[in-house]
Amino acid sequence: MEQQGLTEHELSAWRTSIRMMELLRTRIEQQLQASSGLSNADYTVLSVLSEAPEGRLRAYELSQETGWEKSRLHHQLTRMLKRDLIARERCGSRGIDVVLTEKGLAAIKEAAPGHAQEVRRLFIDRLTPEELDQMAGIAGTILDHLQADERASHTEVPA
Amino acid sequence: MEQQGLTEHELSAWRTSIRMMELLRTRIEQQLQASSGLSNADYTVLSVLSEAPEGRLRAYELSQETGWEKSRLHHQLTRMLKRDLIARERCGSRGIDVVLTEKGLAAIKEAAPGHAQEVRRLFIDRLTPEELDQMAGIAGTILDHLQADERASHTEVPA
Repeated sequence: MEQQGLTEHELSAWRTSIRMMELLRTRIEQQLQASSGLSNADYTVLSVLSEAPEGRLRAYELSQETGWEKSRLHHQLTRMLKRDLIARERCGSRGIDVVLTEKGLAAIKEAAPGHAQEVRRLFIDRLTPEELDQMAGIAGTILDHLQADERASHTEVPA
Repeated sequence: MEQQGLTEHELSAWRTSIRMMELLRTRIEQQLQASSGLSNADYTVLSVLSEAPEGRLRAYELSQETGWEKSRLHHQLTRMLKRDLIARERCGSRGIDVVLTEKGLAAIKEAAPGHAQEVRRLFIDRLTPEELDQMAGIAGTILDHLQADERASHTEVPA
């Protein structure tokens, strides 16, 4: 069925790629959930915040760092606020910062070594250095286009 | 935080890769949901069944084709049974087949052209033929290991 518009070769490449993506993120998330109760998305937000100066960022900076659009980011941050992994703090007259809490910092500190080990085991160590560079280049190309596409769809002015 | 056990270079390659994977599957699923109400997982099951002889497979064959372990497949099939996209049918004394229903066939026929177009737009057309082959090779390598790893963890005999 799916062939419509794709050659057999393209279809095969796509299916292998999407199945790898699905299974890899599932497995990475299973390890995270089991060891620390964090989802992949929780981990992404905590790791971005933990590397920001003073553990704080504006929401639009988080959106840029994660590549998520506004509504997805909002739902994710709401879930994390309820669990005290992050907090919102007014920052002068400029607006609201998203801030890493002590609980959030403790959670990522606890999760990080096991997560890195799983990333190495399931992804990094499976590839030669050359393949890893190829993968990063390909992923960057696709990601740039996805993010540009997302920005374009959100700045369209309704008629 | 995440650096523990990964070099800066490895970490950067991983982050670009996982963000691409997250955003790509989200976008592909958004198009599917909006046009046909199907998830990526629904689409995978329907496309595998639609290509099987008589539109039917044993559950273990579906598991092999999708790369999902038993519990994930079971939950997915239960959801699809409730929506009449698939049915279970006893097949002689050999056990139970999973069968594509008329509704399931109609759903994938309706979804396939738009899905293929989105896969082309967001993935295939972003890459050179050489990059597409590199991506498929890398994905296959990682997927083989993930599936072998999954089989091993499910055949461990408890002490």
